[in-house]
Amino acid sequence: MNLILLFHEDFIDSNRVLLTGRRAEHILKVHRATVGDELSVGISGGMTGKGTLVSMEKRSVMIDVSFTQNPPAPRPVTLILALPRPKVLRRVLQTATSMGVKRIFLINAYRVEKSFWSSPFLSNASIRDQLILGLEQARDTVMPEVLLRPLFKPFVEDELPDIACNTKQLVAHPGAGMECPRNVSENVTLAIGPEGGFIQFEIEKLSECGFQAVCMGERILRVEAAVPAVLSRLF
Amino acid sequence: MNLILLFHEDFIDSNRVLLTGRRAEHILKVHRATVGDELSVGISGGMTGKGTLVSMEKRSVMIDVSFTQNPPAPRPVTLILALPRPKVLRRVLQTATSMGVKRIFLINAYRVEKSFWSSPFLSNASIRDQLILGLEQARDTVMPEVLLRPLFKPFVEDELPDIACNTKQLVAHPGAGMECPRNVSENVTLAIGPEGGFIQFEIEKLSECGFQAVCMGERILRVEAAVPAVLSRLF
Repeated sequence: MNLILLFHEDFIDSNRVLLTGRRAEHILKVHRATVGDELSVGISGGMTGKGTLVSMEKRSVMIDVSFTQNPPAPRPVTLILALPRPKVLRRVLQTATSMGVKRIFLINAYRVEKSFWSSPFLSNASIRDQLILGLEQARDTVMPEVLLRPLFKPFVEDELPDIACNTKQLVAHPGAGMECPRNVSENVTLAIGPEGGFIQFEIEKLSECGFQAVCMGERILRVEAAVPAVLSRLF
Repeated sequence: MNLILLFHEDFIDSNRVLLTGRRAEHILKVHRATVGDELSVGISGGMTGKGTLVSMEKRSVMIDVSFTQNPPAPRPVTLILALPRPKVLRRVLQTATSMGVKRIFLINAYRVEKSFWSSPFLSNASIRDQLILGLEQARDTVMPEVLLRPLFKPFVEDELPDIACNTKQLVAHPGAGMECPRNVSENVTLAIGPEGGFIQFEIEKLSECGFQAVCMGERILRVEAAVPAVLSRLF
């Protein structure tokens, strides 16, 4: 937790927050903060700044806060991700958020197991928990938007053209003839397939929509490595 | 498992292997292979090629194999990694292996919890399991070397100068003034700190040894995201 993310309901006065639960516990047990200590804080959707711990109880802390800085710039990318298995999903959401992705579509694909769509980790609350962890990690405050699209074809045919309009459209696909570009200047729409990859039909549909298949060399990466690897290569 | 990694003890004839255990189970249950199917294979430390499934039992498979191709090129980097927590270690070993790292030093640092050094995941057998998973993922055959260095100062003072000699020496350090370079042509020795980062003393010792601190922008990444992100940016 490199930043304590604050929400309006945490405020008990215009510049004072009272925290309980996970954040208070982390401040007390991991940071081992004491009265007078300075902590990095940020207000959800807004600026970042500093807090001073003014009092603490067994399970709560009171912090005086002031906000002076903008959060880090977002990464100019929309991520289209074939829904990974639930445990991987949680880590990938954290990673993508910590790297500044602000819009993530979780889509179906032939090799996505049907059962993944009924995972409790797809609840709004569970997704939000992962996004918060990612923001806290990267000292960011701006919550990404995560959208579920359990039907591949209607998504790619009806919705994706508008989403990807005026962006560089790339699909990470092992074995593609072209290497993933580096350090691009445009906005990107990046599609990443499931473990085992998109099937040929899916690549064709994405290609009809304007997507170029690119690879990361000969090596096939797992989704949780591919997401940070491709993002950091692109920007 | 994008490649079935074979060892000398698997061979029952010059071009025939008999597999049981995890690999046989994977071939039968995940690949759902049947007699006549073609599978990607590689011989540990050697070439890759194709196998044809010639017979199968409930818990074993027999495959005829031939080797025709070199494994993917290694990534010209030595990774110096502050020992992460055991669960993270396993994933990071897999990721680094799948990305072609061939030498990994797991070192101590002030913010590495002492208990991590007594984790069963540091046994040779457990480390090897993760390396095999990484090789299978990336269709590689060449096992990385993983070396444990539980004392920071003697390692950095006595051993690191020789390891890093004639390489670009970089330490990933959030807040460093310099951005991590892209697409370098030299061999690299890359140090990555623990969660919370290297402390100032450690950065100074690395700097005395010739290491340049570099960052990945304003955002602080978790070790498991930093490893693929920095590797993919460097090469």
